[in-house]
Amino acid sequence: MQYIDGGVTAPQGYFATGVACGIKKNGDKDLAIICSEDVAATAGVFTTNKVKGHSLKLTMQRVKDNGYATALIINSGNANACVGDKGDADAREIASKAAELLDCRTDEVLVASTGVIGIPLDMEKVLAGVEEAVFGMVADGGHDAELAIMTTDTVPKEVAVEIDIQDERVVIGGMAKGSGMIHPDMATMIAVLTTDANISKKLLDKAMREVCATTFNRVSIDGESSVCDMAVIFANGLADNAGIVKEDASYRLFCETLEKVCLYLTKKIAADGEGATKLIEVTVNGARSPEDAHLVCSSIATSPLVKTAINGCDANWGRIITAIGYSGADTDPSRIDISINKIRVCRSGAAAIFDEDKVREQLEKDEVLISVQLNYGEHADRMWTCDYSEDYIRINGSYRS
Amino acid sequence: MQYIDGGVTAPQGYFATGVACGIKKNGDKDLAIICSEDVAATAGVFTTNKVKGHSLKLTMQRVKDNGYATALIINSGNANACVGDKGDADAREIASKAAELLDCRTDEVLVASTGVIGIPLDMEKVLAGVEEAVFGMVADGGHDAELAIMTTDTVPKEVAVEIDIQDERVVIGGMAKGSGMIHPDMATMIAVLTTDANISKKLLDKAMREVCATTFNRVSIDGESSVCDMAVIFANGLADNAGIVKEDASYRLFCETLEKVCLYLTKKIAADGEGATKLIEVTVNGARSPEDAHLVCSSIATSPLVKTAINGCDANWGRIITAIGYSGADTDPSRIDISINKIRVCRSGAAAIFDEDKVREQLEKDEVLISVQLNYGEHADRMWTCDYSEDYIRINGSYRS
Repeated sequence: MQYIDGGVTAPQGYFATGVACGIKKNGDKDLAIICSEDVAATAGVFTTNKVKGHSLKLTMQRVKDNGYATALIINSGNANACVGDKGDADAREIASKAAELLDCRTDEVLVASTGVIGIPLDMEKVLAGVEEAVFGMVADGGHDAELAIMTTDTVPKEVAVEIDIQDERVVIGGMAKGSGMIHPDMATMIAVLTTDANISKKLLDKAMREVCATTFNRVSIDGESSVCDMAVIFANGLADNAGIVKEDASYRLFCETLEKVCLYLTKKIAADGEGATKLIEVTVNGARSPEDAHLVCSSIATSPLVKTAINGCDANWGRIITAIGYSGADTDPSRIDISINKIRVCRSGAAAIFDEDKVREQLEKDEVLISVQLNYGEHADRMWTCDYSEDYIRINGSYRS
Repeated sequence: MQYIDGGVTAPQGYFATGVACGIKKNGDKDLAIICSEDVAATAGVFTTNKVKGHSLKLTMQRVKDNGYATALIINSGNANACVGDKGDADAREIASKAAELLDCRTDEVLVASTGVIGIPLDMEKVLAGVEEAVFGMVADGGHDAELAIMTTDTVPKEVAVEIDIQDERVVIGGMAKGSGMIHPDMATMIAVLTTDANISKKLLDKAMREVCATTFNRVSIDGESSVCDMAVIFANGLADNAGIVKEDASYRLFCETLEKVCLYLTKKIAADGEGATKLIEVTVNGARSPEDAHLVCSSIATSPLVKTAINGCDANWGRIITAIGYSGADTDPSRIDISINKIRVCRSGAAAIFDEDKVREQLEKDEVLISVQLNYGEHADRMWTCDYSEDYIRINGSYRS
């Protein structure tokens, strides 16, 4: 497997672009199209929030009912969510307009939307943007598409890899926006994966679920989960590999590769959390059950006190063990060991003897690894998050106004 | 019922003081004693964190086994938690020392501790402090005791009320420390209630549980829960009322009065959350079950995005409905109404028409009320919290060092 240049247009047969249709007041790009030459198998993972954006609901439905798609239209700056019936109609109209211009079936067009919720889309601008995007899309337009879906992101998040599957070169590309689950009202996280692999719809769906569970579903910026979060994948089969149709070595290779792509984007999202100065990885081992491992991981990764301590380069393991204690997981506090960047700071639930300066040195790095060994079972989990800085408050106190 | 001056020494027969024994580096008071003339019935509510401080564990055990107590010793600045067997021995030694000086049974002395965890107490200082406190305690020493338990608190939190029960004047006094559940590694919240009411141990316990459920257990600063949180009550019977021994009108009056005392302290704690500029009250009505009402309340009250929006005076109801959506409660998003200080901002899950300036005016006040009507059932809940300001990060990024 090898990383290559590009993002969603790196695999064969994809076109994309991003245009500025006037939703973002500063004139930045705010509408993206990603389109496959041939109709592609598709799969998706969607927010579990009970409140679901109108565009997201339509896409969920189409992925479920149909499982094939040609294009995806994403607008940023104003999410199509919580505006009543008009929101559902708008989602359908965006798809219809694109389908008409692309000369495909309307249910082959998916839609996504990110930005402030509760304000109806300015459809005149959006529809003009769809037209401009369809006519402007190009085979190397992935980067422009990425730019058009960014909101408070400070860096674009794109990746592509190539791999041999069934003796053919297969490429998987991806892009993402959003600072993890930090921005529920901005529809937070959208990830788009594309591949030219030939894979059955059913296995594509299975691969997507498995991979998202350990990547995008393991990033948390502030424990919030948005109404428009989605990750979708297109697989158009143009690589001409024989076909991944059963859970064999080729399927596993595909999954492993997809996981690398998603993991890359996941870390980028976590590290780009609003106001973040560091990427934090939390690993938990020795839990009695997978659920307990996840509870502990999640409790640490969402603890504001842990995240502010890391921001202040403070080896405050007391906050970590406290978060473990209230996680709801079955643990024995007197068995817990905690390390920060491999330096043991807590042994058997009490202070370990460690060199404060050495730990501070580690905490000043861009990446901090918090490792917890519960010594209470066989199960593990890991998550990614970022520190909390004063900028987090600044950004979120004034976002909407 | 009438508010009167004073705190824990306002009821008859209580002595208290606070001394500086040298745990706090700046020379502030850091050790408090609260002592009843006669042995008092006692009850307590303790942290649900699996990790429990050594002093807290001893007090839990004594309240449960014994149910009577004479004194409570509290130190601040360094919590007796997560230090292994020495911590258990230290807790017992503090109680023994106080019992010896007070000439009472050692199991009649309770202990509490708040501050950074994982560092053993300097017992020489603590024991000298206990001696100074026992010899220095006075009948109007409640305020000094309160000063000695403060950590990052910016204001003392004390209250006392008087009421007639069974034709006798009964007084309930109280004090608290801690910015809600904001400071797990500081043992966060300690509340001490005292009364001269004559009430059975059993009913005192019942009253305490009921009242804490709707007051101290309904405050959240950042969703964290500490290893040393406790609220304890002493009832020494010196008011000479006939005795509250069944769940009659006198009992209910006692409960209502105790609730007012605890509610006063609860709001003080929430409003004094670290870096807080506003007190936020969240009320939820129309939930299908009490559990759902609490889930929704808690999800809103702990949402960093809601709390930063309120800090920025931004009527961002999208963040509120998003928090409802991911709360895990059974709701119908299309029925949800949301008001901010009585101004409707969301109707039936979509934007209501409201005057942005008027809402902003309300958000600039010291107290903000978020009211949610789920229109989905008959159950309600309410919680108190505060906004998140940049100061929250500043305080917590550097606390330990």
